[in-house]
Amino acid sequence: MKEIGIGLLGLGTVGSGVVKAIAGNQLSISGKLGAELQIKKILVQDLYKKRLVQVPQSLMTKDYQDIVNDPTIDIVVDAMGGIEPAKDFILAAMEKGKHVVTANKEVVAKYGREILDKAEVHGVTFLFEGSVGGGIPIIRPLKQCLVANEITEISGIINGTTNYILTKMATEGKEFAAILKEAQDKGYAEPDPTNDIEGFDAAYKLAILASLAFGTPVKFEDVSFEGISNITREDMAWAVELGCTIKLLAQTKEHADGLEIRVGPCLIPLSHPLAGVNDVFNAFFIKGNLVGELFFSGRGAGDLPTGSAVVADIVEAARLTVTGSGAKPVCNCYRQKRVKPKDELLSAYYLRAKVTRSEVMLPVNNLLLQEQVPFAQTVKRVQQGKGGNMVYLTEELEERQIHGIVSKLSAIPGVKEVSLMRLEGNQAGVGQVARV
Amino acid sequence: MKEIGIGLLGLGTVGSGVVKAIAGNQLSISGKLGAELQIKKILVQDLYKKRLVQVPQSLMTKDYQDIVNDPTIDIVVDAMGGIEPAKDFILAAMEKGKHVVTANKEVVAKYGREILDKAEVHGVTFLFEGSVGGGIPIIRPLKQCLVANEITEISGIINGTTNYILTKMATEGKEFAAILKEAQDKGYAEPDPTNDIEGFDAAYKLAILASLAFGTPVKFEDVSFEGISNITREDMAWAVELGCTIKLLAQTKEHADGLEIRVGPCLIPLSHPLAGVNDVFNAFFIKGNLVGELFFSGRGAGDLPTGSAVVADIVEAARLTVTGSGAKPVCNCYRQKRVKPKDELLSAYYLRAKVTRSEVMLPVNNLLLQEQVPFAQTVKRVQQGKGGNMVYLTEELEERQIHGIVSKLSAIPGVKEVSLMRLEGNQAGVGQVARV
Repeated sequence: MKEIGIGLLGLGTVGSGVVKAIAGNQLSISGKLGAELQIKKILVQDLYKKRLVQVPQSLMTKDYQDIVNDPTIDIVVDAMGGIEPAKDFILAAMEKGKHVVTANKEVVAKYGREILDKAEVHGVTFLFEGSVGGGIPIIRPLKQCLVANEITEISGIINGTTNYILTKMATEGKEFAAILKEAQDKGYAEPDPTNDIEGFDAAYKLAILASLAFGTPVKFEDVSFEGISNITREDMAWAVELGCTIKLLAQTKEHADGLEIRVGPCLIPLSHPLAGVNDVFNAFFIKGNLVGELFFSGRGAGDLPTGSAVVADIVEAARLTVTGSGAKPVCNCYRQKRVKPKDELLSAYYLRAKVTRSEVMLPVNNLLLQEQVPFAQTVKRVQQGKGGNMVYLTEELEERQIHGIVSKLSAIPGVKEVSLMRLEGNQAGVGQVARV
Repeated sequence: MKEIGIGLLGLGTVGSGVVKAIAGNQLSISGKLGAELQIKKILVQDLYKKRLVQVPQSLMTKDYQDIVNDPTIDIVVDAMGGIEPAKDFILAAMEKGKHVVTANKEVVAKYGREILDKAEVHGVTFLFEGSVGGGIPIIRPLKQCLVANEITEISGIINGTTNYILTKMATEGKEFAAILKEAQDKGYAEPDPTNDIEGFDAAYKLAILASLAFGTPVKFEDVSFEGISNITREDMAWAVELGCTIKLLAQTKEHADGLEIRVGPCLIPLSHPLAGVNDVFNAFFIKGNLVGELFFSGRGAGDLPTGSAVVADIVEAARLTVTGSGAKPVCNCYRQKRVKPKDELLSAYYLRAKVTRSEVMLPVNNLLLQEQVPFAQTVKRVQQGKGGNMVYLTEELEERQIHGIVSKLSAIPGVKEVSLMRLEGNQAGVGQVARV
C-alpha cells in the first residue's frame, strides 16, 4: 500500500489529536484512502518534554529543515498557532511542492490570501477545516456543499472558552474573574486568556467564514469585535430575569450597503436555538438563498475533534498525491464587497444605568427621550432614596448613536455605572418572556 | 470562460430546482468554479406540459439518445426517481464517459454499488448528495469531513412528509387519515403516499447513510422499517401526556454483534433535540469516535434545497472536467459487517392495551409478569365496569420477545386493542416528565 508522508509542526493539543486520530483509526482511514498515512517527523521546541501522546523519540526534531527537505514528506501539517514561524514554514513547504494543512486560525485570517496565492503558484493545496469549529464541518460545507448558494448570513458561537465561562456565569451566578480562574485550572482557558476572552480568536474565525461565505477577501481588521471580560454578574442576572442569556456571538450578514462582520456579547432569548448551546460546544446558523437555514452544532475544540477536522484535510490532500491530480482551485474570493464600519452597524440594545438615588431617574429619562431612543421595553427598579437600576431594551439604532448616548449618560451626576450589550434573536420572544 | 454541458433527466420538483439554482446563481457559481454551467438538454415525457420553471422549448427532448450521444454534455443529472429507466440511463451515460449526479435515493440504495463499480471502470464520478437530507450537507460530511472517524451511530428525521404529518397530529389532535389528506392537498404528500408514509423513502436514505458511515455495503433489504400509517390519535395523545412526541426515526448504530439499521415511529421525550424538529424539516445526529456528537438540521426537501445539493455535486463533477483530473476513488465500502436481523434488535417500548372492562386488568398484568417484562413505568386508567387503557413503558428487550408478548396479549379475551411503539432518547427524561 502506498505511503503518504506527513511532517507535523507542533505536538500540543492539536498535534497530539492528529497523532491519536491517525494512530487510532489507521485501518479505517487507509481503507477509505487506499494509502497509508505515515507521520515521518514532528517539529517540537523541546525534544524531551512529557507529551500528551506517546510517539517514538526518533520522529522528533527541533529543526524545520529536517521536514521541509525530506522528500518522503508529502504533506506538512501546521499545529502550532501564531504567525511566526508558522507562516514562513507554510510558505517554505509549498515552495518544496508539499501540500499544507493547518488548524491555525490566526495565520489563515491574516495571511490566507497570500498563502493561497503561493499554493496556486506551486500547484499544491492549502486546507484549513480545523481552523474553525473544531470537529464541526464548516469550511468544506461552505466551499463545496453550499457552493450553489448565495450565502446571506452566518451566525454562531465559535469560541469554546468564552462559551464555557458564560454558561457558568449564567448557571452559577459568579463573577467573570472567578469563573475564568476555574476555567484556567481545568485547562479550558489559557494561562494568558486574552486571545479568547477579548474576542480575537472568534474574530479570526469569523474573518475566515465571511471570506468563504461572501467570496470576498475579508481582512482581520474588517471584523468589529469585543470580548466578554466586562460582563458583570449583575448584567447576567438581568439577562436571566429578562428571559435571556448572554452569548458571545459571531455574526456576518449581507446588507444592501455592505457586509456586517462582528463578534460581541449579546443577550439572546432562551427560546433562541443558540441559547441552548452550552459549555465548550460551538454552533452555526447558515442562511443561503437556495438551502434556507441550516444549523450545525458539535464540539468546537479539543484534541480529538480538531484532530478529526485536520485529518479530513490530510486525507483530501493525500488523495491528490495518490491520484497524482493537481490541486483544485483554492481561492473563493472572486469579488470585492464593501465591509460596513462598526459605527454604521445597527442593533437593538440592552442598556442599564445604575443610579445612586431616585432623583437621577428624571435626567436619565429626559436624555433618552431627547435622543429619541426607540424603546421596546423599560424596567426601572429604583428604591426611593436608595438608588437602583434603570434597564432599557431598545429597538434598532446605529452603534455611533448608542455610544454617543452612553457617553452622555455616564456624564450625568448620580449615574454610577452604564452597561451596554446588543440584543439579538427573536425580539418578540424577548418581549413575551420579559414581562417583569 | 469554459462551458460545462449538463444533460438533465426530468423536470419535476428536483429538476426545476436545479434549473432555478443554476439560473439564479450563475454568476457566483461561475465565479467559484471558473467555468460556466450550461444546461444543454432536458429529458421530459411531455414536451408541452406546463412547467414549474421556464426553459426554452429547444432544450426539451423525449429521447435519451439526444443526451447520451451529445458530446458537449459532460455531466448527466438524474432528477427522475424510480429504478427504470433511471438506472439504465445512468449506466449508459457512464459508458460514454459522462459524470453522473443524482438525487434518486431509490436507485442509490438499491444499485449504488453496481453504479459505483461502473463509474470506476469508466473513470467518471457518481455523486448523490441530493439523495438524502435535501439541502442539508450529509453525504459529503460522511465521505470527507468525517473520514478520519469511526462512525458509531447516526439517528435522525429524514422524511419530511411523515414529519409534517406527525407534527400536525401532535399539535392538532386529528387522526392520521385527516392530516394525510390535508398534506396531499398542500402538495406535501404524493397522490400515492405509500413511499413516504410506509417508510420506504426513509429506508432508502438510511441504507445510503449506513453504507457510508460503516464502510460496508448495506442493502435496502438490510433495513428494518415500518411507517406511520398505524399511529392513532389516541397513541399520540398518550405520547403527549407522557411528556413525549412521536417521530419517525431513522437509526443506525454499531453493536459488538452487528449493525442496527432501522426506521420506525418512536416516542421521544420533548427534551430530546429531535423533538423540536418539526414540519418538513430534517435533522441528523452523528456520533464519531473523534468528533463526538454532531447535530445538523435544515430543509430536507423542496426544489431549491435539493437543487442546492444537486448543484454542489454538479460543481464537484465540473471541477474534474475543468482541471482534467480523473475521478476520485468513490466507493467507501472497504469491509463487510454483519447486519443484525430485526428480531434481535433491542429497544425500550411503549405498550398500550385497551381493555373492555376492569376485570381484564388481572390477566394482562399476569401475562406481563410471567413474561418478565422489565417495566420502567406503568399507567393504568381503567374505570370500574367501563374498561380503559393500560400503558406500560418498558426497559430494553428484544423485538422477538415483545412481538410474542403482543400476540399473547391480543389473544386475551377483553383486550380490544394493543398498540406498540419504540421508546427512544433520554429515558430518565421520559420518567421525569411522565409522572402522570
